[in-house]
Amino acid sequence: MADRADRPGISRRRLLVGLGATAAATVAAGTAALPRSGIASWDITTDVLIVGSGAAGVSAAIEARQAGAEVLLIESLARFGGSSAMSGGVVYAGGGTALQQALKVTDSAEAMYNFISLTGGPHPPLDKIQLYCEESVAHFAWLVAQGVPYSEKFTTAKGLYMGDESLYFSGNELAWPARDLARPAARGHVPGIPGMNGGRRLMQVLLSRAEALGVSLRAAVAARRLVIENDGRIAGMQVSIDGQPQAIGVKRGIVLASGGFIHNREMLRQYAPELYDCSVPWGNAGDLGDGINMGIAAGGAALRMHQGFAIAPIYPPENVLSGIVVNASGQRFLSEESYHGVLGDAIAYHQQGRAWLITDQRSAYSLHQDNFLPVARGSSIGDIAAQLGLPRGALQHTVAYYNRYAANGDDPMFHKSQAYLRPLQGPPYTAWDLGVADAFFPAHTFGGLHTTVDGQVLNSFGDEIPGLYAAGRTTAGLPTAPYIASGLSVGDCTFFGRRAGRAAAADAGLRL
Amino acid sequence: MADRADRPGISRRRLLVGLGATAAATVAAGTAALPRSGIASWDITTDVLIVGSGAAGVSAAIEARQAGAEVLLIESLARFGGSSAMSGGVVYAGGGTALQQALKVTDSAEAMYNFISLTGGPHPPLDKIQLYCEESVAHFAWLVAQGVPYSEKFTTAKGLYMGDESLYFSGNELAWPARDLARPAARGHVPGIPGMNGGRRLMQVLLSRAEALGVSLRAAVAARRLVIENDGRIAGMQVSIDGQPQAIGVKRGIVLASGGFIHNREMLRQYAPELYDCSVPWGNAGDLGDGINMGIAAGGAALRMHQGFAIAPIYPPENVLSGIVVNASGQRFLSEESYHGVLGDAIAYHQQGRAWLITDQRSAYSLHQDNFLPVARGSSIGDIAAQLGLPRGALQHTVAYYNRYAANGDDPMFHKSQAYLRPLQGPPYTAWDLGVADAFFPAHTFGGLHTTVDGQVLNSFGDEIPGLYAAGRTTAGLPTAPYIASGLSVGDCTFFGRRAGRAAAADAGLRL
Repeated sequence: MADRADRPGISRRRLLVGLGATAAATVAAGTAALPRSGIASWDITTDVLIVGSGAAGVSAAIEARQAGAEVLLIESLARFGGSSAMSGGVVYAGGGTALQQALKVTDSAEAMYNFISLTGGPHPPLDKIQLYCEESVAHFAWLVAQGVPYSEKFTTAKGLYMGDESLYFSGNELAWPARDLARPAARGHVPGIPGMNGGRRLMQVLLSRAEALGVSLRAAVAARRLVIENDGRIAGMQVSIDGQPQAIGVKRGIVLASGGFIHNREMLRQYAPELYDCSVPWGNAGDLGDGINMGIAAGGAALRMHQGFAIAPIYPPENVLSGIVVNASGQRFLSEESYHGVLGDAIAYHQQGRAWLITDQRSAYSLHQDNFLPVARGSSIGDIAAQLGLPRGALQHTVAYYNRYAANGDDPMFHKSQAYLRPLQGPPYTAWDLGVADAFFPAHTFGGLHTTVDGQVLNSFGDEIPGLYAAGRTTAGLPTAPYIASGLSVGDCTFFGRRAGRAAAADAGLRL
Repeated sequence: MADRADRPGISRRRLLVGLGATAAATVAAGTAALPRSGIASWDITTDVLIVGSGAAGVSAAIEARQAGAEVLLIESLARFGGSSAMSGGVVYAGGGTALQQALKVTDSAEAMYNFISLTGGPHPPLDKIQLYCEESVAHFAWLVAQGVPYSEKFTTAKGLYMGDESLYFSGNELAWPARDLARPAARGHVPGIPGMNGGRRLMQVLLSRAEALGVSLRAAVAARRLVIENDGRIAGMQVSIDGQPQAIGVKRGIVLASGGFIHNREMLRQYAPELYDCSVPWGNAGDLGDGINMGIAAGGAALRMHQGFAIAPIYPPENVLSGIVVNASGQRFLSEESYHGVLGDAIAYHQQGRAWLITDQRSAYSLHQDNFLPVARGSSIGDIAAQLGLPRGALQHTVAYYNRYAANGDDPMFHKSQAYLRPLQGPPYTAWDLGVADAFFPAHTFGGLHTTVDGQVLNSFGDEIPGLYAAGRTTAGLPTAPYIASGLSVGDCTFFGRRAGRAAAADAGLRL
């Protein structure tokens, strides 16, 4: 996940729609959206305009095009693929997908629904979760039909630094209390290619598919402002091409799918201060919040703007999970085997950004690990506590309590799995800094526009904004905090992106 | 704080501006705001329209009127005063106010700034905090000049169930770590009348003052939608009077000051799920989010919509603070003497809504306490732990660690003040449920429109929306989570309400 995506196999784009006269209107200071009356003529027209070339945008484009619409997809950067191409390419799918069945994994839509709805944060979007789970088998079949390659191989490894296996436990299913709330199943579906290239491959396939269907893909086109009719309907968009304003008129609908806002630092500070402090903004350079801000400018409501994926990637290696993670009071606060998004959320949002992993000789990182710095080393737990400045006696009490039960294979507080449970013993002990500011602590945003399950953007009074759709991290979708499994975000992007594309293509639309 | 405010001494309102023809436009489905072109004629016109009669609205009205503007203030309910009239009426003021000086309290604007900026949540609005602290002495003088009565009496009591004292430590100043981050000073300024009537008195004084100045106050007028010009300027508002739509044209500006959204349950569930679960929605029945939603409909950005004041009012009596508060892992997580907004925030947002107060014989509530139910009682800590279903041995470890140091007057973990620090000993022990759902756990909202220090509402691109102002809990203001002191909210309402009123009166405005 370290590299930016290469341009995924897309040849030079031709713009299918016409280039007309230069747009009359430019963005005036203080103008959040442009009135239709200020646009003298459209430079370009299309049935459906899609903003953003990540998984949400390209899935929307495929479906809109297949529904018969003329589709223009614009991307602000020079390359297509968005943050999805940087990701692992995992899609969280279940309920008995073809791959699960081939690998004899038992699952049900209900177990999947229970996991997603019960183990994340309070009051998640149940309408979206339900539909996603009910249609997950069909959605995975769609991915296969597009040509995404999956191998009939399963791995028990935690995390994605793997071979070419395509199915694994990508989240918190096996950690307590999740395993008691929902029957665990492996639901991380990832392209069956070696290494961390799943996202790149997924996007290559989907972008090629869109192109083959006749979607017009155009890079280096920056969205600026929505153009709005007097009655509130979305009429088009002002964009910038080679520094020149151009007006795109839209006959049916616009799908905003331009990602989140992890790289818009001012926006991040104001909306998601906990994520602002995380050391690594994790997303494509285009994640500047443009789509969200255009939607808000049109009267759209934005939900869960403070939430995000705060990641403390302590595994692999799994041997470190026999250590303990403690807060600034020297207390444990979750099972160390928890999914790295659950651990990251706990640290960033609930422990004021500070935590340490305490290891003994067997659970220490090897020399080559550099995500987390060793900030204390000593021959006793008291040594470590003193070096960290923890409250007097606190860490010693924590370890004494933990060891006492771990010696009998028990973790009464957080029920860590047997595979990782043993007393902490055998110096030297080491403390690894898991603080959001100093560790390798990636983050991206989950907050976005409030949408229906069909991607229709809702205004602050709960009504649909005619002609305006959104998908992916431009919306408040399936991913909430804590983020409980890899694949929920790309899964949400592809699933709800498709629905938004279909709905935009079917929009009664405007006469231009 | 249990009663709704009586109508605070305001005689029957005359509407100073004319009643014209019935408005042509009504709110169409799917319309978040109304285009100016849809309004045939204004039924009413005014220079400045203020929406809401709480502390923010009435402060804005006073200043706008004193600046020479014709001012109409509308209130959706039958009574004036808003949630401010239900509150304690505390204004957080410092830096050497006249009252502090009279009572020989040493303070500085810097110490006040440090307290507010360093001890709440991450990345608070520093521009607003700085101005508020720098001008706090003058703002308190303004309150006195309006006629708000303050007594030259100080009390050391924690909480507001007091006599007629006017100055006290209203927040978390003396609890660790706040006391190490900012020099403590008593800054809670409350009207000098007996009992919990400060808010009612404050609002009586300010409403009478507004009336005397010639502000037109009108109750039972419900705001519906903003009316917006083609260029984005706010032209007026559609309201509902006796069930009939009326259009109010505004020559200078509108100030949205209609409170938060604690009583809009759907909005609360979506934006602030942690507050949704708190047992007591704490605010005036008009706190339905109308002002926030109208602002969003005009393209306004809304910040910190998930935050609020979650209150665990465990004191008085202060003797219970010698008990310990523990989470579902049987661990302490803050100093029990912490301000009830700090404790409430910790429980609601960071402990998944669950906590218990564990007392011994001396620290137990008396029979007459009914905020919190005793859910376990026993002769040993082990008894209590078993009844609560806490992890085996965890509470015993916590108490052993706590008692060991408390016996020597030390609390290494949270540095509880000596006044409340002693070992927990002497059965029967009791556990009192502090869970958000089952305890008396009031909450109200802090999220709202993004504004400048002059109350100008900013859109999602950071530009001012011409003619639109907001103040109080309709904005994202001084109060953030955790809420660190009583008086910050009413202080913010009055201080920034005044500024919004002045700015609206000075707005270049529109020709109607």
